[in-house]
Amino acid sequence: MIAYLDNSATTKPEKEVADKVYEMLTDKFGNASSFHKAGLDAMLEVKKARENLAKALSCDTDEIVFTSGGTESNNLAILGAVEANKRKGNRIVTTKIEHESVLQTVDYLETQGFEVVRLDVDKYGFVNVDDLYEAINKDTILVSMMYVNNEVGSIMPVKEIAKAVKRANAPALIHVDCVQAFGKIEVKPSKLGADLVTVTAHKIHGPKGIGALYIKKGVRIVPRTHGGEQEKRIRPGTESSPLIAGFGKAVELIPNLKKQGEKTKELNHYLRSELEKIDGVIINSSVDASDYILNMYVPSFMTSQTVVQHLSSQYNVYVSNGSACAKGKRSHVLTAMKLNEKIIDKSIRVSFSRDNTKEDVDQFVNAIKETIKTHPEK
Amino acid sequence: MIAYLDNSATTKPEKEVADKVYEMLTDKFGNASSFHKAGLDAMLEVKKARENLAKALSCDTDEIVFTSGGTESNNLAILGAVEANKRKGNRIVTTKIEHESVLQTVDYLETQGFEVVRLDVDKYGFVNVDDLYEAINKDTILVSMMYVNNEVGSIMPVKEIAKAVKRANAPALIHVDCVQAFGKIEVKPSKLGADLVTVTAHKIHGPKGIGALYIKKGVRIVPRTHGGEQEKRIRPGTESSPLIAGFGKAVELIPNLKKQGEKTKELNHYLRSELEKIDGVIINSSVDASDYILNMYVPSFMTSQTVVQHLSSQYNVYVSNGSACAKGKRSHVLTAMKLNEKIIDKSIRVSFSRDNTKEDVDQFVNAIKETIKTHPEK
Repeated sequence: MIAYLDNSATTKPEKEVADKVYEMLTDKFGNASSFHKAGLDAMLEVKKARENLAKALSCDTDEIVFTSGGTESNNLAILGAVEANKRKGNRIVTTKIEHESVLQTVDYLETQGFEVVRLDVDKYGFVNVDDLYEAINKDTILVSMMYVNNEVGSIMPVKEIAKAVKRANAPALIHVDCVQAFGKIEVKPSKLGADLVTVTAHKIHGPKGIGALYIKKGVRIVPRTHGGEQEKRIRPGTESSPLIAGFGKAVELIPNLKKQGEKTKELNHYLRSELEKIDGVIINSSVDASDYILNMYVPSFMTSQTVVQHLSSQYNVYVSNGSACAKGKRSHVLTAMKLNEKIIDKSIRVSFSRDNTKEDVDQFVNAIKETIKTHPEK
Repeated sequence: MIAYLDNSATTKPEKEVADKVYEMLTDKFGNASSFHKAGLDAMLEVKKARENLAKALSCDTDEIVFTSGGTESNNLAILGAVEANKRKGNRIVTTKIEHESVLQTVDYLETQGFEVVRLDVDKYGFVNVDDLYEAINKDTILVSMMYVNNEVGSIMPVKEIAKAVKRANAPALIHVDCVQAFGKIEVKPSKLGADLVTVTAHKIHGPKGIGALYIKKGVRIVPRTHGGEQEKRIRPGTESSPLIAGFGKAVELIPNLKKQGEKTKELNHYLRSELEKIDGVIINSSVDASDYILNMYVPSFMTSQTVVQHLSSQYNVYVSNGSACAKGKRSHVLTAMKLNEKIIDKSIRVSFSRDNTKEDVDQFVNAIKETIKTHPEK
């Protein structure tokens, strides 16, 4: 049996999602922008998916733009907002523990002359709210912050951003990367006070290659892609109707968040209690972090990538060393948390989905115990 | 029976393609950048797809970057090349009949101070080679031209570009949009003398939402997207492994181009001979155009979009009014061909794939005959 515990990297699509994609590829293969029935059939599925997503986000359908995924949504949100807003100020506020697609984008903007403030985090990856208020001034044109950190699960003070922006009387647009939050905790852009919200399908048991950007009505961002009439010209290109429909189906299948959250909390607590019995293991994630993500130090002579490969090949246990997008690079999140080098280099991430069970945790814990025994810390 | 004759808008994915995508969504759902076996399984499929595409293009695997489709590839090629090359000159040469994703992109660059030369075409949509030589000067940093026009099928003098660039001693990179050519005529970037080549899956019986950009070894373009390590950082974001694998399968299934071309030529000639018997029909595509595309004027009081809808609802015949990407807009291609307004507004496009038969043509021709009878020209 395989214990798949790398759900923050990607989730297994639901069978109904795969079936929907297949139906689109075979029966409803038309171009959604065509005027004949094959086009109409595809268009109606795209429409339905957009409605599902709008319902899940409690927003209007015309506030949703489909993209190729989280990275594209983050790029579009940040670069599009800054381009639209650049006459109003020069400061961008973000944190040190954002996803690569945010960090690299603001790094680029810094080379273009923008002032970038990257908020520090504490040893558990939490941002101090006072720092946030202090960072946002009237020159701030964009605040970009993730809701749930992808490596350690820390929950960020995204609901405070709107207040801080208001207090500073800043012209800032607010972008919240909700990739790890969506489908796990409530993501309602209007409640978050967000102008721009990133979500993606493959973290919620949908297909890879499709995401969306919520753009609040009335908020203008400058498109990054030039072309046809699709997605109101904000994101042209033939609609990826099979993936959009698959995304819509995945959204439809999001279970009751409260129930699912309670189940995951139990699983997380069980994992923690088992890990606490193992000498030398250190849990890097706070108890206040998302229950879906647990980052931990493995006391072995192996570095994290080798541990991941070892757990896979020897125990059919699939976890990760940090973010899949940053493969091979030292974690910027654990670095920002000021953990010591040994811990940074030998930590792994366990991430749950609704598919996981106590048996998965047992399999993982046993694998860790044996690994520490056979490959001990030097 | 449905006569699907809108293959330049999109093709029906092969069953084997749909099956491959399904397999990726169910059995091989891992993140291709993960280090466990689920990741490795996905990565191997991405690798295989890249090998298939490299083989088809007679290039190296590291010359291929997967994107979300033709529009993204065209944007990346043009904006990336101009950004990398802008210190060497200021002129961009293209034609008046490129795809929207090229035209809108060069329009944008014009607003940024670049000089854009858009070559004229003749009444059949062909570019004069002398004009091409004249347009390219030593200040030219990019030439972007499609291989086969998507609306009328005219074949463009892309093989002349490299010679013209050399003669002018221009620092230009050469981009060829091969979306309508790939899988139909030989597309070998090295033979074309191209630095950048756009292809997409859904025009070759692959899935929508995935394309690629060939980037010649040694050619540097500036990425448009910031993020993780995927696609050598030229196009970061979690690999859309299901679609990439589906694309690879579609490439594998490309039949012998010569045989398929002969079959299509027969079909095209048969269609032409039948249309020539109908009073008032005008064929806008040259006999020297690609046999896969035939653009024609329908003598009816209905405009082209209404004709398309009528053929669909009354006769199960699916064709298009120009490009699906430009829905509702007057064709810039027919306009550049200087056809009169009536013809521009009442022309439709028939486009073949290897799936089409003589029976499809008969069904279409009968539908046209009846349409003209029941909805005659005023």
